[in-house]
Amino acid sequence: MPDFSIGVDLGGTNLRIAAITSEGKIIEKIALPARLELGRDRVLDEMCGAIRSLSDKHRSVGKFLGTGVGMPGVLDIEAGILRKAANLPGWDDYPVRDEIERRLGTRVFLNHDAKVAALGEQWLGAGRGIDNMAMITLGTGIGGAFILNGKIHYGMNGMSGEFGHLTIEPEGDPCGCGNRGCAERYASATAVVRMAREAIAAGRAPALAKAAESDPEFSAHTVFNLAMPGDEEARRIYRRFGQVLGIMLADVVNVLNLEVFVIGGGVVKAWDAFAPVMFEELRSRSIVYGATAPADPMGEGGKLGPHTKGKTVITRALLGGDGGLYGAAHLPAI
Amino acid sequence: MPDFSIGVDLGGTNLRIAAITSEGKIIEKIALPARLELGRDRVLDEMCGAIRSLSDKHRSVGKFLGTGVGMPGVLDIEAGILRKAANLPGWDDYPVRDEIERRLGTRVFLNHDAKVAALGEQWLGAGRGIDNMAMITLGTGIGGAFILNGKIHYGMNGMSGEFGHLTIEPEGDPCGCGNRGCAERYASATAVVRMAREAIAAGRAPALAKAAESDPEFSAHTVFNLAMPGDEEARRIYRRFGQVLGIMLADVVNVLNLEVFVIGGGVVKAWDAFAPVMFEELRSRSIVYGATAPADPMGEGGKLGPHTKGKTVITRALLGGDGGLYGAAHLPAI
Repeated sequence: MPDFSIGVDLGGTNLRIAAITSEGKIIEKIALPARLELGRDRVLDEMCGAIRSLSDKHRSVGKFLGTGVGMPGVLDIEAGILRKAANLPGWDDYPVRDEIERRLGTRVFLNHDAKVAALGEQWLGAGRGIDNMAMITLGTGIGGAFILNGKIHYGMNGMSGEFGHLTIEPEGDPCGCGNRGCAERYASATAVVRMAREAIAAGRAPALAKAAESDPEFSAHTVFNLAMPGDEEARRIYRRFGQVLGIMLADVVNVLNLEVFVIGGGVVKAWDAFAPVMFEELRSRSIVYGATAPADPMGEGGKLGPHTKGKTVITRALLGGDGGLYGAAHLPAI
Repeated sequence: MPDFSIGVDLGGTNLRIAAITSEGKIIEKIALPARLELGRDRVLDEMCGAIRSLSDKHRSVGKFLGTGVGMPGVLDIEAGILRKAANLPGWDDYPVRDEIERRLGTRVFLNHDAKVAALGEQWLGAGRGIDNMAMITLGTGIGGAFILNGKIHYGMNGMSGEFGHLTIEPEGDPCGCGNRGCAERYASATAVVRMAREAIAAGRAPALAKAAESDPEFSAHTVFNLAMPGDEEARRIYRRFGQVLGIMLADVVNVLNLEVFVIGGGVVKAWDAFAPVMFEELRSRSIVYGATAPADPMGEGGKLGPHTKGKTVITRALLGGDGGLYGAAHLPAI
């Protein structure tokens, strides 16, 4: 009988809780809306209710190892405190880990969403068996994390993996971080919508204009849906996305010489629209010795054959939206 | 009586060998020209003669721990083989470590020049006691290395630390690596001379033109000597140097969240000409949370006070040209 643990993925929109065996099998998953408007206490009550229900229900499966929680924001991992998160108003400097432990009476491990996603992919996904990898999450912004020498890399105070703020255009668009021309100003869901609205305002994007008018949820996905059948302006936006992502990846490939880069997050669904240009940039910009992209990394679906030895592999996340859940559940075991 | 080891720094110009105690004190140093034109066998004979002479002479000091050798190029560290080095023609795929061991009959440790320089600075210099740091060497190009979690970071095949090929200007000058707008196209000794010659050719740099005419060794140092008393064009060149270095550093600060960046290499002598702009760029481009440059990092001379907690410190190398020698000598002890 395998041991099991609980993984929690708390985001700005969803709260998901899963019981997962130590072999990486989901026993049961609970998906709830993250009702942040009710305040942090109610959110934690709902979270802990679900954790308790799952851990009680599946105790017959095997030994319960504990709970891992992945969440966004600036965390003090050691202290288990959320310092600041744009998506979680009212949670600043809140001792999240201790509050959950107090409610549950069992051990809780807290970590960043991007770091647990990386851990999940390393445990069961595209980075399986890989000691040196980066995870890049494409969403509202660009997040990321590193596994170095087999372990999550925290850096000085846990804030490593800020791929989104690599400077791509030194004189480019101002970013909220204070810099200009950051990668996430061009390669994120927010950036796609901004570029689309700029194209509409400039009068050069009739199809996008029509979509924006009729679709109240006009999003990066709407632009993708126009890009795939061939709308020129929508395609141009995702080409720019891919170009910037390629420059960003080449930078990190050149500097860190990692085995694998795993790209995940919601916008990875638009892979077919941005990946060809991304690989083109990567090939032309990453230094030659051993650090070039393989000719057809997609063809491998994350399996790393002997032909990839000495080459950095860039691949899609294999666990989709569940990477963070798996990674969180793995925290009590590492 | 302290133990001692031998450190060797083999470069394109110089071959230096030193006996260094396990406490980091140089007992004796031998500096020779690297007479590469005589072929690798003669160079290794000279190197081993000096190693043997030092290790025999100082055996009375204490136990001899072994020899560490730092050298440029693409190395297979595990196999001890030099794969390729632009500065060392005829050495491709040469089993350097085994050849030195065969001559000496004692254990030899081979490593990259930038990595041993990082190790030296971590052992005895600006990175003393620091577990997460980067070393950047400004010379003909830009080299570098990481210490992560207290250890040299090799990456997939030892080629980490290629800071010089971070893309600064996506549409900028073509680089020998195949990319465009690489950092070392603007922030290296080679780049300074190129920018100076461009300014001379454009007719906007009379003082530089005069210097180039009269000085057969017109170099980055000549340009520095004109910049300091205020020559406008020479100053502009080093401002550009500092700006690009600042963008490059901000990228790595944002992505890796390291405690310390140590800047060394020959061109660090021009610090006063490029560092002010470098820090200005760094402050405006590195993300806010804990990863900004301290207000006056130079004032600290590498000592990290409590006020720097949570801040990445950027500082000059403290061991000057000897960092690589110290680091190489430290290899047998780690």
